[in-house]
Amino acid sequence: MKLNRQRELAEEFRRLHNRKDVLILPNAWDVPSARVFEDEGFPAVATSSAGMMVSLGYQDGEEIPARVLLSAVGRIARVLSIPLSADLVGGFGGTPEGVAKSVKAAVRAGAVGINIEDFVHEEKRLLPVEKQVAKLGALLRVQKETGVPFVINARTDALRFFHGDDAARLDEAVRRASAYRDAGADCVYPMGLTDRESIRRFVKVLDFPTNVMVRKGLPPVPELKRLRVARVSFGPSASYAAMGLLKRASQEVRGKGTYETLTEGAIAFDELNSLAVPKEPKMA
Amino acid sequence: MKLNRQRELAEEFRRLHNRKDVLILPNAWDVPSARVFEDEGFPAVATSSAGMMVSLGYQDGEEIPARVLLSAVGRIARVLSIPLSADLVGGFGGTPEGVAKSVKAAVRAGAVGINIEDFVHEEKRLLPVEKQVAKLGALLRVQKETGVPFVINARTDALRFFHGDDAARLDEAVRRASAYRDAGADCVYPMGLTDRESIRRFVKVLDFPTNVMVRKGLPPVPELKRLRVARVSFGPSASYAAMGLLKRASQEVRGKGTYETLTEGAIAFDELNSLAVPKEPKMA
Repeated sequence: MKLNRQRELAEEFRRLHNRKDVLILPNAWDVPSARVFEDEGFPAVATSSAGMMVSLGYQDGEEIPARVLLSAVGRIARVLSIPLSADLVGGFGGTPEGVAKSVKAAVRAGAVGINIEDFVHEEKRLLPVEKQVAKLGALLRVQKETGVPFVINARTDALRFFHGDDAARLDEAVRRASAYRDAGADCVYPMGLTDRESIRRFVKVLDFPTNVMVRKGLPPVPELKRLRVARVSFGPSASYAAMGLLKRASQEVRGKGTYETLTEGAIAFDELNSLAVPKEPKMA
Repeated sequence: MKLNRQRELAEEFRRLHNRKDVLILPNAWDVPSARVFEDEGFPAVATSSAGMMVSLGYQDGEEIPARVLLSAVGRIARVLSIPLSADLVGGFGGTPEGVAKSVKAAVRAGAVGINIEDFVHEEKRLLPVEKQVAKLGALLRVQKETGVPFVINARTDALRFFHGDDAARLDEAVRRASAYRDAGADCVYPMGLTDRESIRRFVKVLDFPTNVMVRKGLPPVPELKRLRVARVSFGPSASYAAMGLLKRASQEVRGKGTYETLTEGAIAFDELNSLAVPKEPKMA
């Protein structure tokens, strides 16, 4: 991708976080799942790390070689004309320098947004805040070095892995998100923030672009707007739903011997095939 | 994969074509779509060439580098404990030797079944029958050289690309399928054979294992059994259905701001993650 074009996409993605409206950000696992979201009119697309890794035969986390993940990011970036945000898990690097290297490669692959987590997958253990802040510093340096003002979405898993009751976990999520905000992130992403009251409190205290993830019980988009949520992403839910569909289709064909789940509401060959073709950018 | 195990899988797959029952063969596009089919109880899985290629950013045909396609086959074979059949389009080789090389690589990647087509994708033009028969000869040599008795499914696109009326196209499909049967194929696959009467006539004349593909209007499995069809495969329909689902989910979230299509009937994180883990073979 030409640098100028990538800068424009990064600026465009950045503007989508201005909190005038809720950015609905669908997460894809491969090329057609990403392209179909662009065709459906979303202003940007993100990768789902779990969705993409499992699609390529790896469990969620950093088991997948970074180059395999980044190739998949590049394949998706190639077919989109809208901003693409890449989920880089913990950053694929033991040190801030290691993380910087992976993030630079993701930007080179075409990403204009980066998700970065504050926990160790294998051990389900939160990193010390200072370590995560040092990683974010590395991302800021990559923004300068590459000249691409990509959006940094700083995820915290304090609600999942901090030891304490609900209130203590929410406090820790607020404390971490505030530190990431102050360290230069563009958006914060408290994993597990789902209920109305927690969202309200979190956004009020942070007063900063906040990302929530689709799951059962999440308030609908108009209510997220009233709660001043900046961004709602699908997470791996498109993968969950697609696999659920394959199970229903399997049960139907093995049970009744019919194919309705496969053939009703499906797209046709020409449309599937067209999803491998790069989308032309809209005229400015 | 150990050679002995692969031989067993090939024999197992071969037995599924004995026409005692209809083999329902689901086609997957990636690792989890394949593994979920094994979990749902199918006795074997196949790849969908269109589904897999588009997933990796290529249009259907031989635009995708063979090594990229074969890596994807290998990733799927790794997680399955049941037979995997690979769709190799026209064989990725201009000569029988070239085709043999690709087929050998597919077997090395873990495939115990091969689909091979008799037309040139770019030009939508049928190959001369003799050329296709020469390719099938190459596949028979690969069976001997590798020691893996993989199932050869010989596809003909005469119903789509032969010039003539419906009757002439069906005659040409019969003529080609008979030639491929006599050349040593294990199953024939007339693309576009969908209606009851054509299926009945085709199977009666061939008297040989015949593969039909799921599409709107295909008789249900019990009727295929009465028509003595050996195998019904999904083709790319699982990809078509999954993309249709993503479109409905997109329209719902962008329209009403709700997430039912994403969250109802979906699998959960642990199940998705488990689909990257190789399935243990059942005890014999």
